Amino acid sequence: MPSTSSAPGKVYLFGEHAVVYGEPAIPCAIERRARVTVTERDDDRLRVSASDLTLDGFTVEYGGVDRRPDVDVPTPLIEAAMGYVDAALAEARDAADRPSAGFDVEIESDIPLGAGLGSSAAVAVAGIDAATRELGCDLDPGEVAERAYAVERTVQDGQASRADTFCSAMGGAVRVEGADCETIDAPALPFVVGYDGASHDTGELVAGVRALREEYSFASDTVAAIGDLVRRGEAALADEDVAELGRLMDFDHGLLCALGVSARSLDEMVWAAREAGALGAKLTGAGGGGCIVALDPDDGTETALSLTPACAETFRAELAREGVRVE
Amino acid sequence: MPSTSSAPGKVYLFGEHAVVYGEPAIPCAIERRARVTVTERDDDRLRVSASDLTLDGFTVEYGGVDRRPDVDVPTPLIEAAMGYVDAALAEARDAADRPSAGFDVEIESDIPLGAGLGSSAAVAVAGIDAATRELGCDLDPGEVAERAYAVERTVQDGQASRADTFCSAMGGAVRVEGADCETIDAPALPFVVGYDGASHDTGELVAGVRALREEYSFASDTVAAIGDLVRRGEAALADEDVAELGRLMDFDHGLLCALGVSARSLDEMVWAAREAGALGAKLTGAGGGGCIVALDPDDGTETALSLTPACAETFRAELAREGVRVE
Repeated sequence: MPSTSSAPGKVYLFGEHAVVYGEPAIPCAIERRARVTVTERDDDRLRVSASDLTLDGFTVEYGGVDRRPDVDVPTPLIEAAMGYVDAALAEARDAADRPSAGFDVEIESDIPLGAGLGSSAAVAVAGIDAATRELGCDLDPGEVAERAYAVERTVQDGQASRADTFCSAMGGAVRVEGADCETIDAPALPFVVGYDGASHDTGELVAGVRALREEYSFASDTVAAIGDLVRRGEAALADEDVAELGRLMDFDHGLLCALGVSARSLDEMVWAAREAGALGAKLTGAGGGGCIVALDPDDGTETALSLTPACAETFRAELAREGVRVE
Repeated sequence: MPSTSSAPGKVYLFGEHAVVYGEPAIPCAIERRARVTVTERDDDRLRVSASDLTLDGFTVEYGGVDRRPDVDVPTPLIEAAMGYVDAALAEARDAADRPSAGFDVEIESDIPLGAGLGSSAAVAVAGIDAATRELGCDLDPGEVAERAYAVERTVQDGQASRADTFCSAMGGAVRVEGADCETIDAPALPFVVGYDGASHDTGELVAGVRALREEYSFASDTVAAIGDLVRRGEAALADEDVAELGRLMDFDHGLLCALGVSARSLDEMVWAAREAGALGAKLTGAGGGGCIVALDPDDGTETALSLTPACAETFRAELAREGVRVE
């Protein structure tokens, strides 16, 4: 019998980039999910079919009983998408001590891929959860998070954030500082996401901030200022002061601009959101292109973003209280 | 015989807003000038005619032998424009010890008014210089700067920056810190200005930064970071490293964004300049609307800005080596 699990994507409410230097950050799970269905096979083979899995503007379709990957889809993209699934299933086999189990796997995701919304972490989390259950082995979300982190480390050559997989597995608002992750109390957060349709090179953006920080004391101070801002953000979350969270998001975005990780499209979306009445708006994730997140309980921001040329896609994505779950 | 003097406007290369809190800043005189022609009259009357003096979108025409101010022009605007001229002439009468001298005055300016480019300081500086010479009294530029500062203080109810009038009178790049102003060495600076056609409320913007600074330690640190950036900028000026100046301008702009003083139009112009190949770009002055300044030795930025909807006017304005001068 097939087992299906889903896990949410995430946005960074505060603290991306500064988190690399030991400052705290607050990623939040959002109600956009990857769903993975796993069915154990009689043999040790693996078949994966993925629909609606858009990566860098390509739709990757592969697997299925009689189909080979479409030759028009570049092999590296298939390999990248396959990497997470392969590694997640390997973790499940290891957890269940069933080294030669075979699976049919189906993946669906409504999290744009490569947009910095944690789609790969969500696929890894949901995949491990579904496959372990299919093998009769129940992991708690913390164990799923740990194994999903191992998946990301493997696939991304050691460059992974523990926060992404923790946030996807546990749900809610997460405080991350170094290797420590914990869920923290948060009010309802009316997130609206704007996506410019572009991808970015996270490594290059992180390296750019590192270079600035090494060159200029004031860049190092800017990173530290983000850390202080995050601590104020924690207090605002505890106070359920959503207007204050918005003000802090605006400030955080400016500091990220100073660190050179914004983009014309991101600034355009941020201004569209603010002028439409958002309580605050900022880029989320590595920057350079990708997504912004705004706080707006009303329709204004979504409407304004849908009319903004720089915005390829916009959607509401409330804070997800639940992390990985059985579907 | 009429005496004509001109004086340049200015842009802030670095440090606006932070200068209010004792950090250094570097305004630079630009090759856009106000020209004031003064002719002593036989009586003690005053006639002022101003052409091309655009204030908040109005053209203010007043004075002339037989003309009264156009009744369609709001009186406060006329009073504002007249205020600087009246006070400048009063300073000239005082300097020459000719308390009842009368003048015909003609003002021309190619510095947009109310755009944060120091048009009022330039009018005060050129007016004092022309009127004192007309009365046979030669002031050195430092004395002109001091008296022009008094004019701005009077007209602006005590809220004036000593840097604006000093920069206009002395020319070149100026280092200001508290009440200390000095000209500093600088290479040729290929400034390009973009103006969104809007004015702003400087007092409100300064108050906004003050409120952030009082509320958040990280806002105070952001102001301090601007100060450190300015000190790096001084070194880059001394090294004639124009590329480095551009990088620092970009960073400064981000910190000003964090402090809430940018605007959608300013960010649009800044991105247009950067993508057109500018070495760097930032808002100049109080922000909230008004002007950006970019560094670009080539035509790219001016062309790109002329095609940017948010930009009402763009022009090249090289660093002006000369301050106030006889025309």
